[in-house]
Amino acid sequence: MTATRVELSEALDRDALGQVGDMLRRSFDVAAFDQDDGGIRLVVNDVLPSEELKKLLKQVLRARRYATGEQIFSRSVAGRCSEDPQPALEAKRDVARIGPGLFAFRGDFLRVRTALDRLVQEVARQAGAEELAYPALWPVGLLQAINYFHDFPQLALLASGVSAHYEARSTFAQRFRKGSGNGEIACTAENGMAPAANALAPTVCDCCYWLLRGRRDVGDQVLTVHGQVFRNEASVSGRLDRLTAFTMREIVTIGSEDFVLGKREALIDEMTEMMTELDLACTIQAADDPFFSNDALQKNAFQNLAQLKYEVVTPLFGDKNCAVASINLHNDFFSRNYDYKDLEGDDLRSGCVAFGHERLAYAMFCRHGANLADWPSSVRAYLGLD
Amino acid sequence: MTATRVELSEALDRDALGQVGDMLRRSFDVAAFDQDDGGIRLVVNDVLPSEELKKLLKQVLRARRYATGEQIFSRSVAGRCSEDPQPALEAKRDVARIGPGLFAFRGDFLRVRTALDRLVQEVARQAGAEELAYPALWPVGLLQAINYFHDFPQLALLASGVSAHYEARSTFAQRFRKGSGNGEIACTAENGMAPAANALAPTVCDCCYWLLRGRRDVGDQVLTVHGQVFRNEASVSGRLDRLTAFTMREIVTIGSEDFVLGKREALIDEMTEMMTELDLACTIQAADDPFFSNDALQKNAFQNLAQLKYEVVTPLFGDKNCAVASINLHNDFFSRNYDYKDLEGDDLRSGCVAFGHERLAYAMFCRHGANLADWPSSVRAYLGLD
Repeated sequence: MTATRVELSEALDRDALGQVGDMLRRSFDVAAFDQDDGGIRLVVNDVLPSEELKKLLKQVLRARRYATGEQIFSRSVAGRCSEDPQPALEAKRDVARIGPGLFAFRGDFLRVRTALDRLVQEVARQAGAEELAYPALWPVGLLQAINYFHDFPQLALLASGVSAHYEARSTFAQRFRKGSGNGEIACTAENGMAPAANALAPTVCDCCYWLLRGRRDVGDQVLTVHGQVFRNEASVSGRLDRLTAFTMREIVTIGSEDFVLGKREALIDEMTEMMTELDLACTIQAADDPFFSNDALQKNAFQNLAQLKYEVVTPLFGDKNCAVASINLHNDFFSRNYDYKDLEGDDLRSGCVAFGHERLAYAMFCRHGANLADWPSSVRAYLGLD
Repeated sequence: MTATRVELSEALDRDALGQVGDMLRRSFDVAAFDQDDGGIRLVVNDVLPSEELKKLLKQVLRARRYATGEQIFSRSVAGRCSEDPQPALEAKRDVARIGPGLFAFRGDFLRVRTALDRLVQEVARQAGAEELAYPALWPVGLLQAINYFHDFPQLALLASGVSAHYEARSTFAQRFRKGSGNGEIACTAENGMAPAANALAPTVCDCCYWLLRGRRDVGDQVLTVHGQVFRNEASVSGRLDRLTAFTMREIVTIGSEDFVLGKREALIDEMTEMMTELDLACTIQAADDPFFSNDALQKNAFQNLAQLKYEVVTPLFGDKNCAVASINLHNDFFSRNYDYKDLEGDDLRSGCVAFGHERLAYAMFCRHGANLADWPSSVRAYLGLD
């Protein structure tokens, strides 16, 4: 356990305090984090020099100030959901918890999730996107080449199997037979397991760029991918807004700067229209990725200043909001790291728009109520669920 | 390395030799396996007493004889595909290899795979199935309760993440940053990783039964689930007929013996009609699960005798065939292991029908050619791809 305290010349408001807390929790197992008279106190369940913790806390406080908070769209609705619809959805078994961050879906929740994907797929078609499908397992090297394990160690998940030898298989089979163990398996050689050659996909778009590696004839293109993605996190309160496994659809643009920026503008227009038809309140505002630790803070500041990432944030219930979609520009990041170029030998730009289907469906049940039959008929018609 | 030899009173034919080889490879890293004059010779890259290997080989030879080979349906077509269509599909990038057993899909291959799922989904609807969706990660305990890790260690894949502490995350971030490593990551505590709490789903139906655990009011029901599943294996030759990650749809029946057997008959009829409309040759024949090692051999024999498992086997190209679907009865296995009962306090039976979409799509390209435009118009119309 390590504790530190940083003095502040000016108190942080509640939003700012929340942002700083979120940034710290990406890197630390935070035991206590609060504002007292004139300063911020932080206690973490990690062992490191107190001075190092203080330095990191100061960097986080500085990085937060870079956030522009710029909004490029805002839509409000009358009223706000006061009650979480999730207990009602669980009571009728539309939503069933399988484990921390893992849920099964059926009934109206699944119908809405499926309908939302159809809408996003239609947005993709309008943008001229070609459909692709990827496996949820990717070679470790695909993510290593873009420094994913360095930037997001807290989210990474690796797939480990048993070694292809009789002895290893026998050991594993005996040790983890029915009735053994405590619900956890250490993926070690002692248990018969081999090192992981694949990671679970944390998103769906990276594979689009990776498939272009080494090519010298890449032209302007729009792609769309739907799939399940995996992150080593879960909502502490068991809610649907932070899952370990969830489904998303991305619309990916690769090409010249003009092409990528032009498609981004068109897609933002389509998104705002969709949010309006779904009758969801939202803001589209500058955001940053949850990079890990200290050298990531500069990346966050850069993301904000360069307006590389926006999130579509919508209310859930009470004072809770969540990001249901994001709009990202990568400049030439993937082209450089995966070494693909256009016919002139230039690096290509890329960008993506990503929709999180469970969050979007959850926001819909918050906004319109736990019973689909009671939703406005215009919304049901727009979803094709009449 | 261990070698052994077993004498045979009668030589095995080619099919029988193939079956024995497949059974051995589930448990061993086989270096050599052949028939000489009057016997079978086996060499494995595993270290165990030669006598033990000999005993296991004898058991495998005996278990194979139990196989009834019973066919309950057979359909033949004129001609047979001589050339693998996969190189042509890869050349036009409909199929792109990401890693061993991992492929990305687009274009005609993806359109056919999607259309095939629509057909199977329609079969499910006709059977009165309710649609469910599951995450591809399941708690270790879900599989342990049905002894999966004991019966199929060679197929198991576990998901391991980094421990939720600053030091572990820093260690992992530094060790596996860009440019480091050899494409593999050992999931050990030394590398900052925590034991696995979740496994990758090896199938889609187990979760249906698990969600009923503890219930005493379970009635007759038909469910259907589509999803990606994961097995720690891959085609050595890089073909599409054995993948590490692939998509399947299952139609699951839970209820009384009469209900489950009645639905099985109806579903077999629907399957044969579908194979006929797709103009695929096939047989539906008795089969067994790839249980690991010695105590599994008795299970295989029992499966065959009790007619618990049938496979829909269809030609690929040359002399290669593959199973594109299976028909399974579980008796009261899941009801007992997950402890759910009907209102009278009795255990419930269950069964499932499973379709492997990549194999089915691959078989279609083998049968009708690499270019969808050249397929018979009746087949394209049936797929809704006109």
